[in-house]
Amino acid sequence: MMATRADSAQASATLRERIESVLSASLPREGDPRLLEAMRYAVTGGGKRLRPLLVYHAGHMANAPMERLDAVAAAVEMVHAYSLIHDDLPAMDDDDLRRGQPTCHVAFDEATAILAGDALQARAFEILAGIEHPEASRVVEMIGRLARAAGPAGMAGGQAMDLALTGHSGDLAHLEHLHRLKTGALIEASLMLGALAADQRKGALEQQLDTLGQTIGLAFQIQDDVLDVISDTDTLGKAQGADAARDKPTFASLQGVEAAETRFRCLYQEAMEQLADAGPRAVGLQELIRQMRDRRH
Amino acid sequence: MMATRADSAQASATLRERIESVLSASLPREGDPRLLEAMRYAVTGGGKRLRPLLVYHAGHMANAPMERLDAVAAAVEMVHAYSLIHDDLPAMDDDDLRRGQPTCHVAFDEATAILAGDALQARAFEILAGIEHPEASRVVEMIGRLARAAGPAGMAGGQAMDLALTGHSGDLAHLEHLHRLKTGALIEASLMLGALAADQRKGALEQQLDTLGQTIGLAFQIQDDVLDVISDTDTLGKAQGADAARDKPTFASLQGVEAAETRFRCLYQEAMEQLADAGPRAVGLQELIRQMRDRRH
Repeated sequence: MMATRADSAQASATLRERIESVLSASLPREGDPRLLEAMRYAVTGGGKRLRPLLVYHAGHMANAPMERLDAVAAAVEMVHAYSLIHDDLPAMDDDDLRRGQPTCHVAFDEATAILAGDALQARAFEILAGIEHPEASRVVEMIGRLARAAGPAGMAGGQAMDLALTGHSGDLAHLEHLHRLKTGALIEASLMLGALAADQRKGALEQQLDTLGQTIGLAFQIQDDVLDVISDTDTLGKAQGADAARDKPTFASLQGVEAAETRFRCLYQEAMEQLADAGPRAVGLQELIRQMRDRRH
Repeated sequence: MMATRADSAQASATLRERIESVLSASLPREGDPRLLEAMRYAVTGGGKRLRPLLVYHAGHMANAPMERLDAVAAAVEMVHAYSLIHDDLPAMDDDDLRRGQPTCHVAFDEATAILAGDALQARAFEILAGIEHPEASRVVEMIGRLARAAGPAGMAGGQAMDLALTGHSGDLAHLEHLHRLKTGALIEASLMLGALAADQRKGALEQQLDTLGQTIGLAFQIQDDVLDVISDTDTLGKAQGADAARDKPTFASLQGVEAAETRFRCLYQEAMEQLADAGPRAVGLQELIRQMRDRRH
């Protein structure tokens, strides 16, 4: 068992290297130089690469070929990167720091940052459309799912709800719904697209990953709120206490930090239990969930 | 011949009604109410609907079914609408008026406008992914083409070049390349996606429409520059002389207004000649090109 976890940690490091190289290679080379530079800055500036990792691990469970997973991983991370660029803009969260570096609109300018986000979203769909799959309808389904996860009933909708919340009180159910859209939808889509990249459909696995995505998506967001309160700015790579400064309800403010911490730990535990009988192909995903649970930023 | 043109004008009016109703029906119903309202405001606030019209007319030439063209028309217009929202932002062109109405960020707020644009782009791809076509690979190709036309090697790239141009001199070749990306790419994609929506591929027609798209895309933009100089604000629906005020080179400033006007008229003439032998199914597209040539805003 220990050997398996050590192997899995090694595999995870190799995977992280692969992700960085795939992301770099997936960026466009044709276009306005400053725009391309801003896109590269936003995509290759580090980050946990959680969504690509979910893609590869779910894809591994479904026996999907690595080359197809590369494309899916790049696409979901580009959507994530574009959302961070736009969320950081002065008109939105007005953040100057991201991963310890100046945000895109600070390093470049607002107009370039807006366009870099726009172009990354388009690029994500272009990459998915380039996937070769024996059944083209599967590619169409993957595109439809990512588009839905990114759009008004997903990430963009969640961010709009988040903006509307500033200065207002909100109940837990509302906050959960908001984050299910804002963060959860893309996490769920990452797992699902990984599974859909396989040659054969696996209905039971898709259902399992769907449930898992909801569980870890919520855990991840509650944990973010807790870390925002208890971590320092250096560890976070962005301003500590930013949520409180914005007068926005969070899981930490609504439930209290301790209750919120207990809650996200229980959710990660639940996620591990959901994978308990998933067999040896789930080892990588289990290890990733442990890493998520233990993260400090 | 005169009867055909009158019929065609009638068909064109019916088509415009269809487009408004298709656009309205294609907007999402699920999501944050203010975000949905901003998306609807931007999409249903009028406009020439040039790109949807190109989709239907090209699709008619290729014998594509109307229901599929509805989806394509909605998708390209949503991409166009999102680009206008973002172009109008204070960090970009900082325009308060569009089609005689307050721009999206004025009617709502900047954050909502950014998100409405983002969500419209995602929605466009979601709509394309919902198209039923006997060959799913065709849908994938359509998505890839629209994504490319919208991204760094297309519309977003052209807008970045445009921003970089402010306060600089530019030569005609540079300006043409810029507008081929900024405006031309989506016009070309509209024609191409209309043709691709047919059951059967028609290589010769695709090639013809590709050339035509380049011709009318350039004509349209030169004409825009000319109208910006010679029209008044009421006719334009946006501030007259906005380009000159921004100290940006235009076809009118580089070539002179008269030469630029001659040039776009010649290009429209060339486009008509490209369709001279295209048969009765091209009548609608020919009529549209005439209307484009004669437009005052």
